[in-house]
Amino acid sequence: MKNATLIVFNGAGKALEEMETPIPELQPGEILIENLYTTICGSDLHTFCGLRNEAVPTVLGHEIVGEIVSFHSGHNKKDYLGNLLEIGDRVTWSIFASNANSDKARAGMPQKSDGLFKYGHATVTETDALHGGLSTHCILKNGTTVLKISKGIPLKVAATINCAVATVAGAIRLSGSLQGKKVLISGVGLLGVVCAAMCSADGAQEIHVADVNEARLNLATSFGANVQHLLTDETLLPNDIDVAFDMSGSPDAMESGLATLAVGGTAVWIGAVFKNREVRVNAERVVRNLITIKGLHNYNYEDFVAAVQFIENNYTKFPFEDLVSAEFSLRDAESAFNYAVADKPIRVGINVAKKTDDEQQ
Amino acid sequence: MKNATLIVFNGAGKALEEMETPIPELQPGEILIENLYTTICGSDLHTFCGLRNEAVPTVLGHEIVGEIVSFHSGHNKKDYLGNLLEIGDRVTWSIFASNANSDKARAGMPQKSDGLFKYGHATVTETDALHGGLSTHCILKNGTTVLKISKGIPLKVAATINCAVATVAGAIRLSGSLQGKKVLISGVGLLGVVCAAMCSADGAQEIHVADVNEARLNLATSFGANVQHLLTDETLLPNDIDVAFDMSGSPDAMESGLATLAVGGTAVWIGAVFKNREVRVNAERVVRNLITIKGLHNYNYEDFVAAVQFIENNYTKFPFEDLVSAEFSLRDAESAFNYAVADKPIRVGINVAKKTDDEQQ
Repeated sequence: MKNATLIVFNGAGKALEEMETPIPELQPGEILIENLYTTICGSDLHTFCGLRNEAVPTVLGHEIVGEIVSFHSGHNKKDYLGNLLEIGDRVTWSIFASNANSDKARAGMPQKSDGLFKYGHATVTETDALHGGLSTHCILKNGTTVLKISKGIPLKVAATINCAVATVAGAIRLSGSLQGKKVLISGVGLLGVVCAAMCSADGAQEIHVADVNEARLNLATSFGANVQHLLTDETLLPNDIDVAFDMSGSPDAMESGLATLAVGGTAVWIGAVFKNREVRVNAERVVRNLITIKGLHNYNYEDFVAAVQFIENNYTKFPFEDLVSAEFSLRDAESAFNYAVADKPIRVGINVAKKTDDEQQ
Repeated sequence: MKNATLIVFNGAGKALEEMETPIPELQPGEILIENLYTTICGSDLHTFCGLRNEAVPTVLGHEIVGEIVSFHSGHNKKDYLGNLLEIGDRVTWSIFASNANSDKARAGMPQKSDGLFKYGHATVTETDALHGGLSTHCILKNGTTVLKISKGIPLKVAATINCAVATVAGAIRLSGSLQGKKVLISGVGLLGVVCAAMCSADGAQEIHVADVNEARLNLATSFGANVQHLLTDETLLPNDIDVAFDMSGSPDAMESGLATLAVGGTAVWIGAVFKNREVRVNAERVVRNLITIKGLHNYNYEDFVAAVQFIENNYTKFPFEDLVSAEFSLRDAESAFNYAVADKPIRVGINVAKKTDDEQQ
């Protein structure tokens, strides 16, 4: 079998390194994937810039979509929902491989199982290098949740399903039905616009978005947001919100989000995945107003299925493709990162297989 | 009909005033109750001491049990569960009267409905004075949830059902099943010991209690608590707790409670019903560890039913009677308050009808 090509990250400030490696023999339960497209997530940028420490050498990129090249001989060739899988099928897969029979997985938290493996976060070794998006190939380990997706979904949209879209699906699970509800979304990156779209599809009555960036607020209107709040010290936010989602991780935003909640309201926090000052919570208000705060990191199997279904049903209804404002080849990954850090677009794409969407269909 | 006697509160620092008032004609939906027993709740003490402002004149006491004297002619004579009610039946009633068809009540929060009325918190007027526990009679307004209870339940235990016990039942609803779980209860007053007993009855595996008062920790062991934590600056609390209940309202306790939670853990706050400093929350930990924080004030219909069922099933299994360490007559209410403030017992009882439990049966 031919070699795989991957782009190795050796630490912040060091040049990304292109390397070739033989594709190893598949182990039980494994699937070999040809990566087609990878989008660079905010946490990839944090690692690239040294704001977050990962063991190196590693291969970054976990928002990936690809096609099946081969199965281990004993594989049952079914996806998580029982759909038959064939060579050439387009698939998305969970960013983690975990033991579905572990206590945590049974309790609805497979993303926190013992012995977890995470794509785009693991160390590159001589025998185990194909686990990131900045690579021509990925080997899906046993315990990875694989879902077949339609080839009609644009690659740049499909790539985001297994991180941003699935995490927001988890946030929506935590919030409960949004039918007729008033929601606030603080932080309008990819999580924020996907959240607006999901709230819209779920029948939310008012979708407020809050950000310090006016262009991002405007972008959110294409995804169902109907009230914009450009955040300054004087911004007056509403006080009758049923669900306040925080995608920003900003303590200021989480505090003002809590203050917007109506009696019985819920705050869902998913943005706070980096060190910051503590959030100051008025416990008397939480008690008297029957407030709930829920934190979520990554997602579970159910959320991942919901994410795929949402994109299958809605990829033509909202301009998701426009969120990837620049596209690079795998070889130009370093330029892609530098562009992403400098210009802060919603997403930068790596067209790994250098195929256009038309060729892929 | 004979007059009612009530003890009127005119403001902190002023003597309680005994007064007589004619019992008015019942309005549609109303029930006249002879109060038998009232326990003095922490919030009564807050008002008595001026830590909390209520409009005066008022009649304090909302943890009450009594017997039915008469119904308005059009009353359907059924309790909330459809049990037939008769004159002489012993009943407990929700501390609030609300519109069960309001949006908030339909959303499971009748205690926050518009136009809410709360027993033991309302202003005494010439025509509306019988709405507190420090009174020989109470008129249950339309919209009050009434539940018939067994005469076997000691009066001093029955009196606590409609406040402390029902609020803890709400906390347990928010926590979900405790079967096999590890719980921490911070603050061992009446809420704390009732919580320990409910966790025990629900099959919790470990019931940790934390307080600054050693005697209270010891007391909790009679209610199912099996691990005591005497709080000092050096107290090492566990870090694998599934549910951390806070009954203390202390920001320190809420912060250390959050720190005890395992991945996927839940903090339930019910103690923070007074002004205090803000609680500092590590949002990154809430997110990465999938933590939930839920606040609750008072309770809903379902919680109240659960509270009655819990006491009916468990009043002989735990020493609830011992929690009322001193008993006073209605006329001696002022002494009861002064004793409660000075000695800080779990509860002080007002034997309104001056009958012993035996006479009541």
